[in-house]
Amino acid sequence: MFPKVLALAAVVCLVAALLAVPIALHSSKPVMAALNASPSYTKDGDMLPPGDYREWIFLTSGVDMSYFPKPAGMESRSVFDNVFVNPEAYRSFLSTGTWPDETVIVIEGREARSKGSINQSGHFQAGGVVGFEVHVKDEARFTGKWAFFSFDSPSGNGTLIPQGAPCYSCHAAHAAVDTTFVQYYPTLLPVATKKGTLSAAYLQDEAARDADAK
Amino acid sequence: MFPKVLALAAVVCLVAALLAVPIALHSSKPVMAALNASPSYTKDGDMLPPGDYREWIFLTSGVDMSYFPKPAGMESRSVFDNVFVNPEAYRSFLSTGTWPDETVIVIEGREARSKGSINQSGHFQAGGVVGFEVHVKDEARFTGKWAFFSFDSPSGNGTLIPQGAPCYSCHAAHAAVDTTFVQYYPTLLPVATKKGTLSAAYLQDEAARDADAK
Repeated sequence: MFPKVLALAAVVCLVAALLAVPIALHSSKPVMAALNASPSYTKDGDMLPPGDYREWIFLTSGVDMSYFPKPAGMESRSVFDNVFVNPEAYRSFLSTGTWPDETVIVIEGREARSKGSINQSGHFQAGGVVGFEVHVKDEARFTGKWAFFSFDSPSGNGTLIPQGAPCYSCHAAHAAVDTTFVQYYPTLLPVATKKGTLSAAYLQDEAARDADAK
Repeated sequence: MFPKVLALAAVVCLVAALLAVPIALHSSKPVMAALNASPSYTKDGDMLPPGDYREWIFLTSGVDMSYFPKPAGMESRSVFDNVFVNPEAYRSFLSTGTWPDETVIVIEGREARSKGSINQSGHFQAGGVVGFEVHVKDEARFTGKWAFFSFDSPSGNGTLIPQGAPCYSCHAAHAAVDTTFVQYYPTLLPVATKKGTLSAAYLQDEAARDADAK
């Protein structure tokens, strides 16, 4: 249904950080605490870490999400991804069905374990952060209004992923609202549907899928 | 490692609501909005719903967690459970390693889907709430300080689960902190460990497991 290059882009940009080897918890770069939810940057263009994101609004979690079918016989460790957004942006979305300027979406990876304490099957989250990425809307700063930043840890500064990287084109081609994957945020998809803010690209994807299913 | 009756209790109390058939979204009972995070009750002892819990602090999510090994050949639908706590209680826990009076912990179930939009494998959350339960600390109100309430929906009133129900004894016997399963909350387990607030029962469980593994 979609070009392999886009699927690859999605994997590279959204999943790579979460499946990466455990990150170093102390970056060698100098780090400043972000004092509020507005995106802030160093003079070199790195993004300061959103220090209190675990007190932001939880949008969803997934486990081992992939844009490819699961390869038979290839077992790897399982990872949850938790998605958070700054409260101001969330409340704006509830009113408007789309994101305001200075929206900061954080995706955080945690190991998915099955055996632990009295748990015997299924998966729970355990241990430290094993992946960290930010999608930020900063209209005056970025071409296309949004940018992705890759972090080695939640407490280090983030490195800008260049605008030509395939994650940008994949999000533009498949994301439900304003280049964000609201189709995976169960409390927000109904809001966007009601407000009429679903992207033309997403609606075309869904219509094509429905047609294929018939 | 632990009596089957306790495992059954845990399943009954923590998982049943999440694996239940989809709930009715409109209860026939009269419902009032909870205006703040303090637990509130009807004169009949039902609990008013925590209306804004999706803006509380996210503690963790799990998928298909069970205290029994997964039965071979028995496939059922997958369900995520998302756990939230009121912000005042969370901040108190960060300082003290345990829960203050008027802690309200919400567990919410959402369907886990695999195919949707461009996702092909793993699981994401989709659709409405398919299970809803509250664990509340209200020292003056409840014997043992804590109580469980079962909700038909996030907007209906909750029914008290009687203090003799097995979930109470299972939580007392296995939960890491103050009858709550902090061993599954990855940001709080290190806090409790550092503050020395892990329960004797949990520490005994872990020591026995470590001994078995040798």
